Order: sequence, then C-alpha cells, then structure tokens
Amino acid sequence: MSDNTFGKCFRVTTFGESHGPAIGCVVDGCPPGLEIEAGEIRRELERRATGRSRHTSQRREADDVQILSGVFEGRTTGTSIALLIENTDARSRDYENIKRQFRPGHADFTYWKKYGLRDYRGGGRSSARETTMRVAAGAIARKWLATRLNIEIRGWLAQLGPLRTDREMDWSEIDANPFFCPDPAMVSELEGFMDGLRKSGDSVGARVNVVARNVPAGLGEPIYGKLDAEIAAAMMSINAAKGVEIGAGFESVTQPGSEHRDEMTPDGFLSNHAGGILGGISSGQDILVSTAFKPTSSLRLPCRSLDIDGNEIEVVTKGRHDPCVGIRATPIVESMLALVLMDHVIRHRGQTGQFGTENPAG
Amino acid sequence: MSDNTFGKCFRVTTFGESHGPAIGCVVDGCPPGLEIEAGEIRRELERRATGRSRHTSQRREADDVQILSGVFEGRTTGTSIALLIENTDARSRDYENIKRQFRPGHADFTYWKKYGLRDYRGGGRSSARETTMRVAAGAIARKWLATRLNIEIRGWLAQLGPLRTDREMDWSEIDANPFFCPDPAMVSELEGFMDGLRKSGDSVGARVNVVARNVPAGLGEPIYGKLDAEIAAAMMSINAAKGVEIGAGFESVTQPGSEHRDEMTPDGFLSNHAGGILGGISSGQDILVSTAFKPTSSLRLPCRSLDIDGNEIEVVTKGRHDPCVGIRATPIVESMLALVLMDHVIRHRGQTGQFGTENPAG
Amino acid sequence: MSDNTFGKCFRVTTFGESHGPAIGCVVDGCPPGLEIEAGEIRRELERRATGRSRHTSQRREADDVQILSGVFEGRTTGTSIALLIENTDARSRDYENIKRQFRPGHADFTYWKKYGLRDYRGGGRSSARETTMRVAAGAIARKWLATRLNIEIRGWLAQLGPLRTDREMDWSEIDANPFFCPDPAMVSELEGFMDGLRKSGDSVGARVNVVARNVPAGLGEPIYGKLDAEIAAAMMSINAAKGVEIGAGFESVTQPGSEHRDEMTPDGFLSNHAGGILGGISSGQDILVSTAFKPTSSLRLPCRSLDIDGNEIEVVTKGRHDPCVGIRATPIVESMLALVLMDHVIRHRGQTGQFGTENPAG
Amino acid sequence: MSDNTFGKCFRVTTFGESHGPAIGCVVDGCPPGLEIEAGEIRRELERRATGRSRHTSQRREADDVQILSGVFEGRTTGTSIALLIENTDARSRDYENIKRQFRPGHADFTYWKKYGLRDYRGGGRSSARETTMRVAAGAIARKWLATRLNIEIRGWLAQLGPLRTDREMDWSEIDANPFFCPDPAMVSELEGFMDGLRKSGDSVGARVNVVARNVPAGLGEPIYGKLDAEIAAAMMSINAAKGVEIGAGFESVTQPGSEHRDEMTPDGFLSNHAGGILGGISSGQDILVSTAFKPTSSLRLPCRSLDIDGNEIEVVTKGRHDPCVGIRATPIVESMLALVLMDHVIRHRGQTGQFGTENPAG
Repeated sequence: MSDNTFGKCFRVTTFGESHGPAIGCVVDGCPPGLEIEAGEIRRELERRATGRSRHTSQRREADDVQILSGVFEGRTTGTSIALLIENTDARSRDYENIKRQFRPGHADFTYWKKYGLRDYRGGGRSSARETTMRVAAGAIARKWLATRLNIEIRGWLAQLGPLRTDREMDWSEIDANPFFCPDPAMVSELEGFMDGLRKSGDSVGARVNVVARNVPAGLGEPIYGKLDAEIAAAMMSINAAKGVEIGAGFESVTQPGSEHRDEMTPDGFLSNHAGGILGGISSGQDILVSTAFKPTSSLRLPCRSLDIDGNEIEVVTKGRHDPCVGIRATPIVESMLALVLMDHVIRHRGQTGQFGTENPAG
Repeated sequence: MSDNTFGKCFRVTTFGESHGPAIGCVVDGCPPGLEIEAGEIRRELERRATGRSRHTSQRREADDVQILSGVFEGRTTGTSIALLIENTDARSRDYENIKRQFRPGHADFTYWKKYGLRDYRGGGRSSARETTMRVAAGAIARKWLATRLNIEIRGWLAQLGPLRTDREMDWSEIDANPFFCPDPAMVSELEGFMDGLRKSGDSVGARVNVVARNVPAGLGEPIYGKLDAEIAAAMMSINAAKGVEIGAGFESVTQPGSEHRDEMTPDGFLSNHAGGILGGISSGQDILVSTAFKPTSSLRLPCRSLDIDGNEIEVVTKGRHDPCVGIRATPIVESMLALVLMDHVIRHRGQTGQFGTENPAG
Repeated sequence: MSDNTFGKCFRVTTFGESHGPAIGCVVDGCPPGLEIEAGEIRRELERRATGRSRHTSQRREADDVQILSGVFEGRTTGTSIALLIENTDARSRDYENIKRQFRPGHADFTYWKKYGLRDYRGGGRSSARETTMRVAAGAIARKWLATRLNIEIRGWLAQLGPLRTDREMDWSEIDANPFFCPDPAMVSELEGFMDGLRKSGDSVGARVNVVARNVPAGLGEPIYGKLDAEIAAAMMSINAAKGVEIGAGFESVTQPGSEHRDEMTPDGFLSNHAGGILGGISSGQDILVSTAFKPTSSLRLPCRSLDIDGNEIEVVTKGRHDPCVGIRATPIVESMLALVLMDHVIRHRGQTGQFGTENPAG
Repeated sequence: MSDNTFGKCFRVTTFGESHGPAIGCVVDGCPPGLEIEAGEIRRELERRATGRSRHTSQRREADDVQILSGVFEGRTTGTSIALLIENTDARSRDYENIKRQFRPGHADFTYWKKYGLRDYRGGGRSSARETTMRVAAGAIARKWLATRLNIEIRGWLAQLGPLRTDREMDWSEIDANPFFCPDPAMVSELEGFMDGLRKSGDSVGARVNVVARNVPAGLGEPIYGKLDAEIAAAMMSINAAKGVEIGAGFESVTQPGSEHRDEMTPDGFLSNHAGGILGGISSGQDILVSTAFKPTSSLRLPCRSLDIDGNEIEVVTKGRHDPCVGIRATPIVESMLALVLMDHVIRHRGQTGQFGTENPAG
C-alpha cells in the first residue's frame, strides 16, 4: 500500500519525479466556495523556491503552477483540485555518473532495495522537489483556515548548525532575508557561516519552528488521530527531518510536573508547555512545533560507498544542492501544519457539526 | 472522523474507558496461521502493569485478557481478532470531586470542548489504561515479526528526569528492575530519586529509547507513509509523549553532513546516524527511536484551574497515579514500534510480494 | 488488507464467529450526545432473531447485547462504542462431520483457499451470525438519523421464490407477521409455501426492498463514494446477496429516456425512477433499493462435492438452517442502509458544514 | 470526505471536468517493474472513445494520454503514476443556456444542493468524460493481471433496450462492431434501432456483461471488502448504472437451492450460478457480472423542470450526447473489474504472501 496521499478528509495526493516532465497533486475534499487563483499559490511557492539566494540550490524552476480542475469561476467547486507544474530546469546529465552508485545518506539504496529499480535522476521521487506540491496544496488550506477561522501559521529558522537564530523574534523580518531568520541582527552572521560552509564543501543541519495561532479548541481525534501525532508524522515525512517536538518537547524530560502543567485561569493559561495540545486535542492555545533537519548528504567531499553490484566505491556528489536543506524548509513546515489542521477541521466538523456551513444552497 | 484505529493493513481498533466495564481491541488483517494464545499476551501485559513496584500507580488490574475471535485451534484464521479485558479495580468514587473540574495538563478540558460532554472517571477514554490494548495487540505483531522475520524489538528507560540511565547498556538487566533500566548500577539511585519525588508530591518526565533489529530493508512507503513518519505518529500518540527522534534526532542539527551521512562498505554501514531509515524506508540497519514523556500532571500539589462554568478553582488530584509515566512506557513504546513494522511488512508485501507466503493451501 | 470495517467516517468494525465465545463490534465516529441504551438495540435485534417462527433457523440466541464503552450516563461520548453479545446456543458438534468437507454454495472452499485454514463450526466468520452486529450498530445509526434528521427507513419482503409479496403495501403489517410481508392477505400463502419447502428439504431465494424517507438532498460523494455505489456494496456484502437495484434498476434497460427521467415541478418530482439518487447524490426523493438473496445452500438434500484432499464426496447438511435466508434479511437491509446514510451525513457535514451541530460546548 | 479515489491498495485518484483544461488521474500502489507505455493505454482509450460511429456522441477527443510520472525507462517504479489528457473538443457555449437550469435525470440539481455551486459546462465533474481515466488506469491494471496472473477480462453489450444481443456469443466479433455486440447477426438490427431512436430524439438503456477468467481462488476480503460487494460498488459508480448482478443475480430469487448451489467434482464445478464468488471470495470460477444502464436523460425532447430559483421551465438539451450511454460502457465495465481485481490481488498478497514477488532485488 503505497502512500502518496496525505490526510484523511482533506487529502493531497502528489506525483512526479525531480527530473520527470512535471510534478503535481490532487487536492480532494476541499470545501466548496473558497476563492482561490493560481497567483496566490505561486506566491507561496516563491517562498520555497530554490535559487532565491546563493545559499540554496541554484536550480531555477519557475514553478508556474496551473489549476487543472476543481475551481470554476474563481471558486472551489467541492470536487478534486489538480495542480500541475512542469519541470523546466532539470539537468539529468548531472546524474548519469551515479546511475549505478548509492549515495550515503540518500534514499538511493533503500528505493533500490524496496522496488528493485529506481529513477536515479536527481533523486527521482525521493527528491525534495516533491515538497513543492506540499506548499501548493498548503496554500489552499492556509487560505481557507485564514479566511474562515482566522488561523495564522508562521514558521522560522530557529537554529542553523550551531547558530541559534530566534533569540530576538521579529515576525516582520522573517520574509525579509533568505534564511527565514526572525532576528535581523543575525543575518550577516548566517551569511558568513553559509559562505564558509560552501567553501568547505560540507553541509549542516537546522531546526525550524512553527506556530499556529487562533486554532479553536477541539481539533484532534483520539486515540490514533491525535493532533500532535499527526503533526509529528507530517513533519517527519518532510525530507531530511529527524526529530519533532510539541511544546516543551524533550525539555519536558527534566521538568517537574508542577512546572510543566499549564495552569488555567479565567484570563487564560499561565504557560504553554503543552504546545497547545492536551490529550491529542487542541486547547485553543498556540500550537508550537519544532523540527530537526539533518545536514544534506550530497557533498562534493568524497566518501565511501557501494555500487549496485556491492563493489566498494568513492562517491563525490555533483549537481546543485542546498548546503543546508533546513533553510528552505520553513514554508514546507508551515504548509504541513496547515494541511494537518485543515484535515482535522473537516474531520471534527463531520462528527460534531462545529464551525458552521459554507453552503448556503444546501 | 474519529480515530480509534491504528494502522492501514494491520489494523488495531481499541475501545474502553478507564472505569467502564471493560477495555478491548479488534486486530484486523493478521496473517493466518500464527500460533498465539492468551497466555503469551498476558505475559506482555504484565510488563506494562501498574502496581509492579511502589514507583508506579497502585491500581492493580489482573489484565486477564481473553481472545474472543479470530483464533481457532491455537492459530490465527485471518479474520478479525478481538481481545477483551474486564476492568476490576476501578475506583470511580475517587473522581467524583473532579466531575466539574478541569485538571491542568489533562485532556479534561479538551474533551469537553470537543464533545460537549465527557466521562470524567479516571480520565475516561483519555486514560493511559487504553495503552493496555496497544501492548496486547503488539504482542501478536511481535510474535509474527519474531517468528517469521526474526525481528527483535527492545526498549529501555534512557533518562528519568535528570538521571541518564543508559550509559552502561546490559539488555539482560532491563526486565530485572521495575524501571526498565539497562544499567543495574543505577537502580538504587533511581529508587532514591523516585522515593524523594513521591514524598515531594511532584512528578518528572522521562526519555524512552527503543531499537528494532533485523528489520529487512525496504519497509516504509513514500511519500506520506514513510516509516519514520509513522513511527513518529505512533510514539506521539502515546499518552504524555512530547517529542520523537529517529537516529541522531536533534543532534543532527549541529552535525556536519560529512559526519552525519553513514558511509557504506561491503562490511556494512560505518555508523547509524540515520537510525536505520533513509528516505522513509528501512535500510536494514537497526531502527533507533527515542521518545520524550512529560511529567504526570496529576499531582497532590495544588494548582490553579477552572471548573466547567469558567470559575477559578484550586485543583488537588487524588487517586492513584504514576509519578513518572515514562517508567511504564517501555513496553508501550516497543508495542507501537511492533505495530508499525507489522503494518509496513504487510503493506510492502502487498505491492512487491516480498517476504514469502504463509498460506500453503492457496 | 482485511476488511472487517464498514464505513469511512461512521465506522463499524465487527468480530466473532458463529460458534466462538462472543460476537461484537466497535462503532467509531458516532456524534456525541446521542441518547442510547442497550434496550433499544435489543429491540432491533429481536426483529432479526432466529427462532421467531418455524420458518427460520431454530437456533435461539438471547442476543443480550451489552454496551462496553462510548456511552456515559446514557449518552454517546464521541469515543468508540463497543457492543458485545455472548453466544449461548452454539452447537458445534453439528459441524464435526463437515470438518473436512466443502459444502457447495458456501464459503468453506474459498476461506480455505484464501487462508489455508478455517473455523468450520457453523460457517465460522462467514456465518450470517455476523449480521447481528450490523443490526446492533444500525440501531445506533437509525436513532441518530431519526431524531436529528427525521429519516425513516423501512424494509419488506418483496418476493419469496415465485411469490411476489408487495402488491398490496401496508407498512403497519410488516412487523405483524414473521415474513416482513406488507400484504396481510398473503401471509397464509407464504406459510403454506414455506411448509412445503421445509418438507421437500429444498430452499428458495427472495427479494427484499427498502426505502429511506426524508433523506436530505446532498448525500453521496462523487466519484467513487457515490451514495448508490456504497449502497450497492453494503447490500452485496450481506450473506447470500446476488443483485442490487436502485430505483428502476434493471427495468431501466428497456425504458426510453423520455419515460425514465423524472421531471421536476415546483410541487416536486413527477416520478422516482432514479430511486432518489442522481449523479451519486441524494435528490431529496425517497431512496429505493431492491436486493436479491439466493436460496440457502445448506440442504438436507444430498449433493456432489469435495473434501479438503480433493476427493469426491456426497454432502448432506445437518444443523439448523433457514430455508429462505431472505426472510430474516429485512432488518439487515434496513440497517445497512442506515449505516450508509449515517456515514454519508458525517462525510458531507465535514466538507460543507451542513446539518448543524450537536455540541453546544464547542 | 470527498471520494475521487478508487481502491484501497491499488488506488486511482481522478480529476478533471468535461470542459476544463484537462482530465487525469494518479495511480498509486502499482507493483514495480511492469512494462507499460502510453501507446498501450491509448489503444484502450480508443475503444471507449466517442465519435467512433454515428451511434455515439460526436465529440471527438484525441485522448492523447501522457504518462507524467512513475514510469522510468519503460517500467513502473512503484511510485505514483500520473496520467494526463488535455481536453481539446470542449464546446462550452453549448451549455450557456442551461447555466441556471436543472436537467431532469442529471446531477445538476444534486451537485447544486450539495455544494451550493456547480460547473455547468457539459456536466462538469459529473460528466462521463471522467470515465476516460478509469479506462486509462484500468489499462495498467489489466496489463499486470494479464502478464502476471494470466487473467483475461472481457465485456460485451448483452441488451440494448428491448434487443437482447448476446444470444450467439462470439468474442472475436465484439470489437468488430461499434456496439460491442458478440452476435454479428444482430449488428444491422442494432443499427436500425439506433437510427430510429436518434430520429425520435429519445434514448434507451442497456445491459452490459463482463467476465473475468483465470482469477485465482482467494481474492476478496470478509466481511465488508467482499469481492462481489466491491464489484457492485465499482459498477454502480459508473455514470447511469442502476443495477448490478453477480452470477445468477435476480434469477436466484426464484431458484431452488438444489439448483442454485454449484456442485463440485474433481473435474471442477458443475455450474456457475455463484458467478465465481462464494462468501465474498473468488472460487477460481469465472467472475460473472451484469450491469444495467439507464437511458440518457439528455434529450432534445422537451420536458418539465426547474431553474435554480425554483421557477418552472421547459428543458430541451442540445449538445452532443449518446442516445444509449450503455454502448460505450463496455470498456469502462471491463476497466472497473480490472481495478477491483488488481486491488484485491495486492490486498490478499499483503496478508498472505500469495502470488510471489516481482522484486528480485529485495
């Protein structure tokens, strides 16, 4: 049972390889009547795009998304919405040399073991190019959540290798630099760090945080559809993710219960160690999520590996890669949180009827 | 869309409240021909049981599980397997006083917001008593994985509050103490810490690690059914979980790529920062998972809260609670990993036909 | 991927064999706040029960259903509802002789081919005893549909072998005879026919019709979750079903379009050949469904068959069987239609928010 | 929960409106290693195409399907396969006049009630144009079933209005005439009948039969994923379907059990009233399915209807319509049966491991 579909009631099915003719997705279950146009989706895609600065991959894709179905006269119809982007800057010849090689830290080996064959061009299906469609579908979810429930979702780079970047938070700065860094004072330090990294040929990990505000209480399904469980899966499904925390996360290991539990008063909660989720259900507080991304494994520094016949080889990865994949992860993390919330709104509304109707004709 | 079901092809549906007449589950999709009897399931349940030592809740349940269906003449038939445990030591009167109160850090508030009513006795459906059925169902999965694929799953307490407990690993010690601690030299220190905690009336968090050995390469489904994504969801669905790591986890944020990527040689991988999963698919290395559990919020130390009418109150929780819920989490974490792996074996086998057949008649 | 679960958002998972210790089900996704008690479910079960007259199987089960979870203080809580019935009148010794035989027309052969082993006692999992839980779960759905949306569901025996029984429809008569026959004038003829059949040792098929009234327009999901498609699956999943029609059904093969299409006026539709469904979505007209049930294959008349080693044998079935399984199918057909409608109400409400809320606290 | 996806383990998600820019689908879960190219899919599409003769709609679509993903160097990779067809012969102006009208017998009214808006051009999403993608996806399933399991699927027009067309069966004739009629002697009679119908402006229904040969025993999942139940849903999900029969179908109502039950001998079954399915599981006999299609409701004969404001109107449908939609249903019926069987092969293989592997590397 393959799983190119995300979500249960608001479902996104993606397709496409890094170097195939196109990538795309089908969004099924969107409420009818939402005003949406391709331009809005493109604007979200630009935030994720490669080639925005010298610090990310130099592949330049226009990401000129088309809406093929499900939208009529500017509004969603309730039927399946197809989005398509043609690949225009795929350089498959870069990958000819790794056709028979496994790159350590990549999915090359595991896809080959799983399927017995693989599209080796640019990582094929395992490429981060797939995340483009998460952002595209996420744009639809974000618009519905924002316009119907006033939910605001915001991510930022919280740490880049050793540099913690969110000590001074200024949301208005996040989109003003290529790092999604909320502390403008750190941008030049980040640039210097990345320039050094690029020269060394090495890569580094990152931590990306995200918050959702104005999430109504009640979202999340006991027992196995808990909101935090599905957020964890959503984040961990992003390429290179290695860890997820909700609220206090691993800090809660050493916290005493008297500190961790968030006391309640008529004026609201006195803290938010829970990260806005209790018993798997949103409490009305901010949803707080933190995700760890590993360093890119595609390096021009040589390393030991195997070819598909089991022979020992030395691998040097060419091609155009991000020295820190975490940098561009911010819009993806936001989108995944939007998709989880959207799905849970619909699931919760189905069972309880909360959140009203958008169908005046019914 | 409520979600009392875990898994896609090996599915476990649980039911029951902490203080209702019984708890149980239905396991659907188990391969036919597996030899299983209630006694084997009971033995796993005993490892999770409360009341094993003074350091866990004193509720004593026999957990006398019955197999109601799906097993005939000692072997699974391929049809749905129902397991049932009657609740015998529920003291609902302990909870009468919190009938109209929300306990901070609990699901009381969120269930009430979600459903408009709640079974307040012992946490009702949100109680950790539900995890009994995870262990029961997990026992079936573990037996199949062990006997058919030789997969071995082992968890341990890696940290209890400030005390890191896995510096000296000795698997044979894990079940020899009530903490699932793999370092026998630390047991008395843990006992002293827990005794102090109990006297103070406070609680503490924990970190529980788990490893799966002999997992064949190829398990895990791109893109949204990645093995690590579903492990993350499985762990985060356990009561009190706040964070999940695969392999190097959050340490990968500061690792350079040249260190993180696990080099391959004809003799195997040279390291396992990936935690046995690449591109969401198992690589054949050990699967390594670490989960953070928050401290219990049920304390006899008073705290500020609200009642269901919004009035400010002081809450003091009575009843029988674990001062560190993480201690008993070890068998649950093992079971969840077993359920994920079992589900993925079946999903992978369906698409590719790997792992052979257990149906000689077909 | 085994499938002991019915429904997508209102889900019923059943378990249990004909001669095992118990049968049961878990109902997941029920809206909170519905008043339900075991007695109401029992009353529905009595309509389906065997042993009501000499014309059905003489197995007498009390069907003393218990609610194990999901209902608190008389109302559904929104969590999983478990229902359990212990088997008390199972006579397994009746089946010892067919342990190694395949009965023609039964699932004996196919279960054995599928799983490599089978519970041969009373058909095991393939027994119509499983339908008890459809009626039990259906009772919950029917109550919600009736109290919240005023939907009324009513089935009847439309044909018994050669005897068409619904020429004179009188709903008040349906439950007044053991055949669910809506024409009281035919009851004695049916009794005579069944007595003759029983004497001959043979069996006969039946047609059962069902109507749902007051179904709001809008239920049913394009393209693959059409209301008629899921009704067809629901009916065909009942033991012995061989055909399903919606509205005009097979008569529409010979109808001209000018007759078939149901014209619309301000006073409503002028006919209902569509059976209340257009494009897979309810139109607000009555939902009309007709199902064919084959004759029981368990006969005391001998027939040719094989044993599990492939040897030719003669089979004579003993045990207590219905000479016309269709007679007791009426409450089952009603229940399946209720389950489909309930599921679709929740699915539709999730996407569009129609049908209001039952959660005043949210 | 919208449902543009068919299948559980071999899943097809379709999108596109009759008059939108394109239609397409995503096939998820296909086994790796299947050789497939666009040309093979196109050949199947040509069988379904409109404009093949004067007896079907004169819309002429090239149906020039492209494979966008999931196939590499001529073989499926195991990842999601996207198929796309651009719409080239959509004449939306034909529909301007029905923008505010409901056509009796169409989904116009129900889509509007469900979603509060609709794409009125050519039926939008409810158009039979969607079935193009069923045939495209079905071509992949058919090839796998044929090459791996030798399964052969064949449909034919069994009845056209009053004319029963399969009295003399000759499979080689089916594709030799525009009616999929297996009796060459009837073709001129069918042509005459259709010419008369077209002149009258009326339409007529049809019955389409399909058989699957060499289906191995064991496919189908108790209790709610029975093979016959899912076939019924598949057929009923096709536009205009009103009834489905398996094997003897509605004839089994009047059959005595001694006739209906298919006796077994060492040389095989002596009859096939069951239609190849017992207890919801394939028996190894031919799978026999019959589906009723209603007459087209789009007629140039006027009829009474309403507009979206509830005013009484007279509707006359222009545009290019099939006077008998059943004629072109044959390849669709075959494709749906292929999709159901393919899905069940994978589901069954997952649980039991039967049918071997196609992954030599694993």
